[in-house]
Amino acid sequence: MKLATLDDGTRDGQLAVVSRDLKTAHVADGIAPSLRAALDDWAFIAPQLDTLYRQLNEGKAEGRARRPFDFDPARCMAPLPRASGRIIGAAWLHHHELERRAAGADLPVAWRETPQLAWAASDGFLGPRQDLVLAREEWGIDFGAELAVVSGDVAQGATVDAAHGQIRLLLLANDVTLQGLALEERAGGHGLLHAKPATSFAPVAVTPSELGEAWRGGKAALPLRVVWNGNPVGTLEAGEDMAFNFPQLLAALASSRAVTAGTIVSGGAVSNRTTRRHTPGYACIAAQRWQETIDGGEAVTQFMRFGDTVRIEMLDENGKSLFGAIEQTLKNSG
Amino acid sequence: MKLATLDDGTRDGQLAVVSRDLKTAHVADGIAPSLRAALDDWAFIAPQLDTLYRQLNEGKAEGRARRPFDFDPARCMAPLPRASGRIIGAAWLHHHELERRAAGADLPVAWRETPQLAWAASDGFLGPRQDLVLAREEWGIDFGAELAVVSGDVAQGATVDAAHGQIRLLLLANDVTLQGLALEERAGGHGLLHAKPATSFAPVAVTPSELGEAWRGGKAALPLRVVWNGNPVGTLEAGEDMAFNFPQLLAALASSRAVTAGTIVSGGAVSNRTTRRHTPGYACIAAQRWQETIDGGEAVTQFMRFGDTVRIEMLDENGKSLFGAIEQTLKNSG
Repeated sequence: MKLATLDDGTRDGQLAVVSRDLKTAHVADGIAPSLRAALDDWAFIAPQLDTLYRQLNEGKAEGRARRPFDFDPARCMAPLPRASGRIIGAAWLHHHELERRAAGADLPVAWRETPQLAWAASDGFLGPRQDLVLAREEWGIDFGAELAVVSGDVAQGATVDAAHGQIRLLLLANDVTLQGLALEERAGGHGLLHAKPATSFAPVAVTPSELGEAWRGGKAALPLRVVWNGNPVGTLEAGEDMAFNFPQLLAALASSRAVTAGTIVSGGAVSNRTTRRHTPGYACIAAQRWQETIDGGEAVTQFMRFGDTVRIEMLDENGKSLFGAIEQTLKNSG
Repeated sequence: MKLATLDDGTRDGQLAVVSRDLKTAHVADGIAPSLRAALDDWAFIAPQLDTLYRQLNEGKAEGRARRPFDFDPARCMAPLPRASGRIIGAAWLHHHELERRAAGADLPVAWRETPQLAWAASDGFLGPRQDLVLAREEWGIDFGAELAVVSGDVAQGATVDAAHGQIRLLLLANDVTLQGLALEERAGGHGLLHAKPATSFAPVAVTPSELGEAWRGGKAALPLRVVWNGNPVGTLEAGEDMAFNFPQLLAALASSRAVTAGTIVSGGAVSNRTTRRHTPGYACIAAQRWQETIDGGEAVTQFMRFGDTVRIEMLDENGKSLFGAIEQTLKNSG
C-alpha cells in the first residue's frame, strides 16, 4: 500500500491512497481524515485503505475508488506531517566510522554493540518538492538521504520480533544537517537542534509488503540514488552495511519506554563501503568530505550553495520509483 | 483559565475546563475535543473556553456550564498527552553550575550567553497521580520539578516579544531522570534518551493570566514545593535565578526553525542559590548530591527507592495550589 498526504491547508493534511505506479491517487476521507488518525487505529483502518488501494491499482473507477485523479507530488506534504516522536539512529556505521577516522579517532565500541539513538524534531516537515530555505551557506548545508520506518504501538521491553511486527510504513527522507553547527552541538552533549533544520520526505509512505522480497531481515535491500545538481553522487545499496536493522532500532528505543503509534525511527545517513565491484558514492556531502580528509588530508568537496538542487529516490525490484522522488532546490531566506 | 484532560480511553483524552479553585470541572466537548485540537485553532477556541471558565467559576449551572462535576485529579491524563514537540532548556543555571562544580569544572561560557536546548520525548506522558513504574533502583531514579510553557505557532526568527505573545499555557512537571544513565548518554553527545523515562504533569494547564502579577518578565514568580516521602526538600522560588525567561527560551528555539502550536518548552530543573534569608533545598536529588560533593567531597543523599513518594506543587499569590499537585509513588515494574 502506498499512502500520501495532500496539502489541504490543515496541519495534518488529507490522507490519500496512491497507485503502485504513482500515477493515480484517491482521497481516503471516507476511511480516515489523516495518516495520523489512520495510525492511531491501524488495525481497523488499514484493511479499508488496502481495499481502496487494490481497486485503485485495478484502474476501474468503481467500489471505493470512484473518483481517482492524477497523482501530483507537488501537492504533497510529508506523508506524516506531525509524528508522535522522531528518532534518528546510527545504523550505517560506516558513516560514523568515516567521521571519526577523519578526526583521527575510532568509533566507540558501544556504537557496534547498541544502536545509538537521538531525539529529533517530530514536526515542521517539508513535502517532496518544497524548497530548502536557509539563511547562510556558511552553516555547511548538507543533504542526507535516509530511510525511516513509522511505528505502531510498541510495548516497553518488546523483543526485536515484536518490534518488527509493529513496523507500519517506510519513508524516504532528506534529513538536512548544518554540518558547521553540528560539531559544536555534539560537543555540548545535548544532541543536534539548531544543526537540524526541517527534514523533507518523499511523496509516499509504503507498507513493507510493497517491497516484496526486498524487505528482508528488517532491511530494505534496494538501490538508493542521490543526484546533486544533476550529477549522480550516490548509488547506494540500502540493504548493505546496516549494522542494526529497523526492528533492532525500534526495539532499542522500546528498551526503556513504550513507543506510541506514529513514531518515526530513521537509521541515519545511508553509507556503503567501497568494494571492488561497487563505488557507492555518498548520501551526504559530509561523508565525502571525511573520505577526502582520510585520503588526502583535506576536504575538497564544498557544501551546498544557494540554487543547488538535490534529488533522492529509491528504486523497487522492477527499477521503478518506490516512494516517488524528493526533488528540492536550496534557496536563500534572506 | 485552567484546563485539564480527562482520561476517556482515547490517545488525546477529553478536554475539560477546571474552576480556579480546582473544585469543579466541565467537559469542553462542545468547543474542542482535546487540548491539542484547541491549540491548533487557539484564536477561535480559547475565547469559547474562557466563557465556559467564567461561568464555571461563578458556580451557576447555566449558560455553557450546565453540567459541572467535582474535579478529580486522579481522572486526569497529562494536560497535553501528545505534544507537537518538546524541548528541555537550561534556564536555572545554578543547577548546571552545581553539576560542573561537583565534577571540578566550570560551566561553559556559552551556557550563560545562549539558552542550551535539547529535544525530549513529546508523548507517553503520565498524569498527576499515575505511579512511576521503573525496573531498577540502580539507575539512579530522580524526580525533577520543572515549569514549562506550551507554545502557539512561532515564526522562524521571531523576537523575544513575539515569542512572549505566543505562550499559551504553563505546565508543572515531574521530569524524571535516571541519573546513573545520564552521564554516559551526555558523553555520547546525542542527548538523553534512555535516561529520560516518562515525564508526569500536574492536573491542569493554566494561562499566564491566571498568575496575575506573578507572571512578570516572562517568569512565574511563585513558590514551588517539593516533598519527598513526606519531607519538604524543596521550597524554591521559580521567579528567581532564572537566567533565561520563557520567551527567551522559546525565541532561542525559533531562531533556527518555525515552532508549531502545541510545543512544550521547559526551563529544566528549578534551582535557587542559598542566601542568608533563604535555604531553598532542591527540585531534584542530583542537585543535592552535587552540593554535598562540593561541600564534603561525596554525595550522601541516595536516589529514590521503590515505595518512595514525591509531591510537587506550585502555590499562587493567595497560597492556593495553582496547577494542582503531582503526587506519585515509585513502583517496581518487575
